[in-house]
Amino acid sequence: MTLATRTQLISPFYVVEILGQVEKLEQQGVDVIRLFVGEPDFATPPAIIEAAKEALTHQSQGYVNSTGILELKQAIAERYQRWHGVSLDPNRVIITPGGSMALQLAFLATLNPGDEVLLPEPGYPCNKNLLHTVNAVGVPVYLEADQGMQLTLDALEKALTDKTKAVLIASPSNPLGSVMSKEQWQQVMQFCQQHSLQLIADEIYHGISFDGLAPSLLEVTQDGWVLQSFSKFYGMTGWRLGWLVAPENAVEACERIAQNLFLSSPVLAQQAALVGFQPEVEQLCFDRVAEIKRRRDFLMQTLPALGLNILANPDGAFYLYIDISAYSKDAKAFCADLLEKAGVAVTPGLDFGGPNPDSCIRLAYTVGIDRLQQAVDRIEHYLKTLTA
Amino acid sequence: MTLATRTQLISPFYVVEILGQVEKLEQQGVDVIRLFVGEPDFATPPAIIEAAKEALTHQSQGYVNSTGILELKQAIAERYQRWHGVSLDPNRVIITPGGSMALQLAFLATLNPGDEVLLPEPGYPCNKNLLHTVNAVGVPVYLEADQGMQLTLDALEKALTDKTKAVLIASPSNPLGSVMSKEQWQQVMQFCQQHSLQLIADEIYHGISFDGLAPSLLEVTQDGWVLQSFSKFYGMTGWRLGWLVAPENAVEACERIAQNLFLSSPVLAQQAALVGFQPEVEQLCFDRVAEIKRRRDFLMQTLPALGLNILANPDGAFYLYIDISAYSKDAKAFCADLLEKAGVAVTPGLDFGGPNPDSCIRLAYTVGIDRLQQAVDRIEHYLKTLTA
Ligand SMILES: Cc1ncc(COP(=O)(O)O)c(C=O)c1O
Ligand SMILES: Cc1ncc(COP(=O)(O)O)c(C=O)c1O
Repeated sequence: MTLATRTQLISPFYVVEILGQVEKLEQQGVDVIRLFVGEPDFATPPAIIEAAKEALTHQSQGYVNSTGILELKQAIAERYQRWHGVSLDPNRVIITPGGSMALQLAFLATLNPGDEVLLPEPGYPCNKNLLHTVNAVGVPVYLEADQGMQLTLDALEKALTDKTKAVLIASPSNPLGSVMSKEQWQQVMQFCQQHSLQLIADEIYHGISFDGLAPSLLEVTQDGWVLQSFSKFYGMTGWRLGWLVAPENAVEACERIAQNLFLSSPVLAQQAALVGFQPEVEQLCFDRVAEIKRRRDFLMQTLPALGLNILANPDGAFYLYIDISAYSKDAKAFCADLLEKAGVAVTPGLDFGGPNPDSCIRLAYTVGIDRLQQAVDRIEHYLKTLTA
Repeated sequence: MTLATRTQLISPFYVVEILGQVEKLEQQGVDVIRLFVGEPDFATPPAIIEAAKEALTHQSQGYVNSTGILELKQAIAERYQRWHGVSLDPNRVIITPGGSMALQLAFLATLNPGDEVLLPEPGYPCNKNLLHTVNAVGVPVYLEADQGMQLTLDALEKALTDKTKAVLIASPSNPLGSVMSKEQWQQVMQFCQQHSLQLIADEIYHGISFDGLAPSLLEVTQDGWVLQSFSKFYGMTGWRLGWLVAPENAVEACERIAQNLFLSSPVLAQQAALVGFQPEVEQLCFDRVAEIKRRRDFLMQTLPALGLNILANPDGAFYLYIDISAYSKDAKAFCADLLEKAGVAVTPGLDFGGPNPDSCIRLAYTVGIDRLQQAVDRIEHYLKTLTA
């Protein structure tokens, strides 16, 4: 019996191969510096852990409303006011099982089979695969190094067809770390309105930015789709909690989809996440962001000196996207070799698409500065062997 | 900007309306007996709560493998051996965020746009809506009262078209409570093989059955799809944890879909659910099933005497599907009236489809026997006012 066609379209991730190799080496006792995983090394804040324990003792763990606990929706809406000066109706906030399901929900609400979505690349590898689950198509829009990896309206325009239905932009970006300015959001939103396209903003790295808070799409429009997650800023990847802010006229449809797709988001996570909006907990997370910024600064000072060209301005998230063409045009082989010979694990560009995946790698700075120093030393030594 | 066409196809639930009315009445101080919710009234077993607290203290809450923690997959495989005498490769077990996502995963792996899935009705309301999310189509196969609401091969055969790709059967069934025998699974599987159809078994109420364990599709074939959940037997609805057993040749594709669709199932739930397989915890759950059986027996003795005809043999889950045609041919109005005049909340048949939704209601016996006695008294009194 044959499987669905989409099963042939959904590509595997190279990072999973890397993970396999890393685990094998570690089992052999090799010390590997893990710079390939897309999750912060900071654990869930103690206050959230404690709140979860309290909730386990005192609160029911039954189904709740498919769109989430009202109090949590209110806390989120209120944060948009505090962080972005935006007044948001809590009803537009739909709590989801991770940012992943927020993305899926936005796709399900907007896309018919065959519809095309413009995806700036390099970008998040799941996007085009997730689009296959709704039988839609991701159309890459290449970000070019000679334009600082900035998205241009020109590039969007060139990718338009009569099937284009939406544009999906992540800010801060994975793997670039680049951040959309308010003006850029404005321009893209205007472009989308001109061409009757939905604009979907993946803001799941929000909070983790180094030059003040990254502007939210909500600052420029009430008609866009914004997805968010507790995964990164709150170090809650395994809890599976995120949210979608939908345009007013789509909320009711999203609610119906949610009722069927996932019934309810993880309830304990919702009960616990509530304390994440308390000033002390937010402050703890911002202190962590300050530490992440120190790591970024350290790498920006050390890596270019090794002939490694950092693409874009990494002003958020915890990734550097690095041009290694001075050393290799086969990033996959480069990564495998760097891992084996130097014990440093990074991800080949192939996972992220874009114009030059074969000469790029992603480095996730999810280890402390001491360990990063060690990584830089190992990389330096390894690169010397290549040019020797 | 227009939304996706499927947003018009996904129907809302009447039970949500009922919930709204119930909450309004309760706010007015009215005592409502809640017999409309699809979740057990038993809380998560204390041992699982304790395990969760332990895990919060000692274990990481980061992403885990998209298909789940190996230990949990092994415990599940081992339970199929204990419960069903079936040897199962743990690799075929894919942990999911609730049975809902297991269903979605099976659909995504098997169905192309336009493919048809045969759905015995009355059945679980989400099925046909979920099928719209993958652009497939649910084709109802009516279960008839004069055949004891049993699925016949004849009825399946009549519904076949050249687009039919799969058959989805729930056992124990929601809303009927009926259970597929091993022979019935065998017959349907044979039918599916003859017609090159996938067979998907929704076994999420497994464990909650009153005449021994309900047979699993895995007892008759290795080529079917079986979905399960911690929601009902373990009283863990809000934790969002379930699993899919996929055919060997589909496991790798399911893994790729899971990596994109949900990344990881809730991790704390996985860590905690592990203790659910300990003999004492399983025993506690079976003791609860014994209590659920006593409730069923009580209702089977009292309701028919009121002229309420219980359809099918409710041998599992915690639902009765009741023919109210002696009193009304408008179940929606009947339910609203019963709620308002007698303070008993049940669900109109309309949510579940089938041949006679307008003369049927679903009663969920998720309250204790004392409270059920009260409900029966109230219903009796209410019915008398109708015939007076
Ligand atoms: C750009 C981007 N969007 C969405 C996600 C989904 O994350 P989650 O489902 O944990 O919220 C990720 C995870 O790495 C990501 O990098
Ligand atoms: C027949 C049936 N299948 C699947 C589900 C999904 O449940 P969950 O996602 O909580 O496992 C339900 C929930 O009520 C159900 O009744």
